[in-house]
Amino acid sequence: MAKLQQSFYVVCLAFSVVLNLSLIFKLYGHGGQWELSWSRRAAEEAEGVAAIPCSGHGRAFLDGLVLDGKQPGCECNSCYRGSDCSQFLTDCEANADSGDPYFLEPFWMQHASESAILVAGWHRMGYTFPDQAYISQELERLIRKVHDIAGNAVTQGRYIVIGAGSTHLLNAAVKALSFSSNSSFNSSSSSPASVVVSIPFYALYETQTVYFRSLDYKFEGDGSLLPNITDGTKRVIEFVTAPNNPDGKLNKANFQGPNSVAIYDRVYYWPHFTPIPTPANDDVMVFSISKLTGHAGTRLGWAVIKDEAVYQRMLNHTVISNLGISRDTQLRAFKLLNAVVEGGGKEIFEFGYTTMRKRWETLSNALSVSNRFSLQKVEPLYCTFFKKIRRPSPAYAWVKCEREEDKDCYAVLKDEANVNGRRGSVFGSEDRYVRLSLIRSQDDFDILLHRLKQLVSKEDAQPHIYMKNVTNQTQNSCQ
Amino acid sequence: MAKLQQSFYVVCLAFSVVLNLSLIFKLYGHGGQWELSWSRRAAEEAEGVAAIPCSGHGRAFLDGLVLDGKQPGCECNSCYRGSDCSQFLTDCEANADSGDPYFLEPFWMQHASESAILVAGWHRMGYTFPDQAYISQELERLIRKVHDIAGNAVTQGRYIVIGAGSTHLLNAAVKALSFSSNSSFNSSSSSPASVVVSIPFYALYETQTVYFRSLDYKFEGDGSLLPNITDGTKRVIEFVTAPNNPDGKLNKANFQGPNSVAIYDRVYYWPHFTPIPTPANDDVMVFSISKLTGHAGTRLGWAVIKDEAVYQRMLNHTVISNLGISRDTQLRAFKLLNAVVEGGGKEIFEFGYTTMRKRWETLSNALSVSNRFSLQKVEPLYCTFFKKIRRPSPAYAWVKCEREEDKDCYAVLKDEANVNGRRGSVFGSEDRYVRLSLIRSQDDFDILLHRLKQLVSKEDAQPHIYMKNVTNQTQNSCQ
Repeated sequence: MAKLQQSFYVVCLAFSVVLNLSLIFKLYGHGGQWELSWSRRAAEEAEGVAAIPCSGHGRAFLDGLVLDGKQPGCECNSCYRGSDCSQFLTDCEANADSGDPYFLEPFWMQHASESAILVAGWHRMGYTFPDQAYISQELERLIRKVHDIAGNAVTQGRYIVIGAGSTHLLNAAVKALSFSSNSSFNSSSSSPASVVVSIPFYALYETQTVYFRSLDYKFEGDGSLLPNITDGTKRVIEFVTAPNNPDGKLNKANFQGPNSVAIYDRVYYWPHFTPIPTPANDDVMVFSISKLTGHAGTRLGWAVIKDEAVYQRMLNHTVISNLGISRDTQLRAFKLLNAVVEGGGKEIFEFGYTTMRKRWETLSNALSVSNRFSLQKVEPLYCTFFKKIRRPSPAYAWVKCEREEDKDCYAVLKDEANVNGRRGSVFGSEDRYVRLSLIRSQDDFDILLHRLKQLVSKEDAQPHIYMKNVTNQTQNSCQ
Repeated sequence: MAKLQQSFYVVCLAFSVVLNLSLIFKLYGHGGQWELSWSRRAAEEAEGVAAIPCSGHGRAFLDGLVLDGKQPGCECNSCYRGSDCSQFLTDCEANADSGDPYFLEPFWMQHASESAILVAGWHRMGYTFPDQAYISQELERLIRKVHDIAGNAVTQGRYIVIGAGSTHLLNAAVKALSFSSNSSFNSSSSSPASVVVSIPFYALYETQTVYFRSLDYKFEGDGSLLPNITDGTKRVIEFVTAPNNPDGKLNKANFQGPNSVAIYDRVYYWPHFTPIPTPANDDVMVFSISKLTGHAGTRLGWAVIKDEAVYQRMLNHTVISNLGISRDTQLRAFKLLNAVVEGGGKEIFEFGYTTMRKRWETLSNALSVSNRFSLQKVEPLYCTFFKKIRRPSPAYAWVKCEREEDKDCYAVLKDEANVNGRRGSVFGSEDRYVRLSLIRSQDDFDILLHRLKQLVSKEDAQPHIYMKNVTNQTQNSCQ
């Protein structure tokens, strides 16, 4: 009996020791997991907020409104409501207006661990980095690396300035280029440089250039309409957007004179949206993290610049206007680009392209049966990134209303389909055109598509006068 | 013998069971600590970098230069070098130039857990918040709360605009105020508004206003020197800095006409630096997180505005120039202010005041034996925050060289003591003055003090011609 009892104790002890060992391994055996101390609260807060269920149609954020006195509430996608975003509003407006690049949000949710960053309370409190610069060297290195991977820009031997989004840098470039190399900077004698664009164009170029009312530059609109501008005596600054917002075309500068300079807005020149025929090598090119990783809210852009004097002026502009760019913003961009380049760096472009191509194909299929609406023609081009002629995947649909009476295409979509696009006149074009954003969330795209399909299905067989005999310009290029 | 053996097993089993229970409690007993998943890597990275030993004379950051191919290197305080910042450079320059507010860094290291924030890869990717605003409502709420705690500004019934530091908002305010309520905004007929200041003043006011070369405003310098400016027909925009940078005075507007407006730069109006005699209630006040929490690198400021039209214009300025303020920056500020208000919110002001007061006392004691150098007089005032007449604790020493021959006080300190201050002429003043920054790291302050003591100890007994018969203006106010 005593022997039996003893055996029982031995078995129990053995079991207990095994349990001891497994618990000890679990506690201390995973590369020091037990060590987290001051960072644990922040990590738990972030995971707690990320776990708030928003039905896949919204998300909660750390700094969201706290409605119940405990934790932030769900922020729902357009057309979804309710505390958990589960309620679909059938009569809501389809949001195809702004260029919020939510199409990349799922990519970051799939790469949560690589892209999360924990910022300590004492992170970079001073104005400058140790080299007295306002720009992180490590971030600059990563920017060059991402360009090398995408093959979309020459950065070797080029200067890089970081700004608060492309918005900040566009004006910095206008200011920096408003003085020719012959005239001294801040010379008051010279007449203002003419800032020109080609129609259709991104509205901010005009808004910003007009707003600052500078003695150094003046917005003159469509360059081709200006008399005497090409005689070479007048300083011309041309905004060239490639791919263009709204129509996706790979625009080139129209002004080539000795006193003409171009600001290449290349924020959409990534494999998500366009074939990359060759690495861009323009004098001044502007990029942004918004259209690369989808982080519009982060407000970080960069300019790649050939000329040192222009670089110095643009850098000076970012310092005088904002005293450099937020270290938190630079840290975030650093982490995101690090996540992009991990494992070779091609994944985000494949994700982005696949998503945008699918959207474009679905949309153009839906409109292919329409006589009333047409889409821009997107040229097929060989893409050095994907090493093939690739199918179109533009960021925006530039829709034309083909019926003679549909002069206000924005109103047609708004009134007949409850679709909120952006008027053609906002881009300096006719209101017969409307821009539809394709880079928003999948929810937004799905609702847009549904509404457009309904609208097209209602097209009657009655004869209409059409603008020209092209029913859908895109089909040939969808290859 | 068997009984003894059995007792041994029982004791071992009991011990093992207790160990098991304690391990299980450790693993699962602390509110779900085991659950961390995608945030763990970021938390470990941050703690790993924070644990890099830099001898207390430097720190490593997540986005620091990676020199050994593994982890970021130490970034050492001025005068310290070596891979672990342990090497003191005896002949280095004492850095008393820039206003990096490192004096608050130890506060954040002491509050590591409350101030850390973990940013998910998908955090706020869009341009706007759910209410379509560019400014976080929760951040705005916290800003008002911190003002309530400090009692330094009336915010009830006031509008708040967030900018990329006070730098961004100062120009936004100049632009917004350059039109009187009678003239229409962007009217080209009116002559530019005169932007004026009192000497000595923060150099950026001039640099920025001159740089933008706007048709709307013109920098005119010292307002008191301008003829015909006070007849009320000309628009006057006055920069009023209270406390003033560099001399800490609580300045007031000099221009009171119906067509005069003031931009109150109140970034130093916190209990760290000044008595708070009353909550400021000016039409346009500018604050920054830089001088409140010490996060200059975060680039976040705010303006408190009475008039709705001015508010709308300033908001418009931040959108046109930068398309709003980085969501990462706003999130960081949100977390830091949250940490400030936790537990009542007085702690940071007590820490800041204690540190700055000690520094001022040590410095003024050191200079009290000098006939060659004097400090600005700081008026003792009743402080509503501390509920007493408080001792001085200014952010900067505004040092005057009293010897007739010491016309360039910056050069005297640079050449004779290897102290790098900021020239009086940078503030529109005589070069007989030099500004010494007292808000940098303790290392920087200690070296500055050491150098000044050495310099003062070398003052000879030879007769000199002095500017006036005041040896040290500060002693009376150090009470």
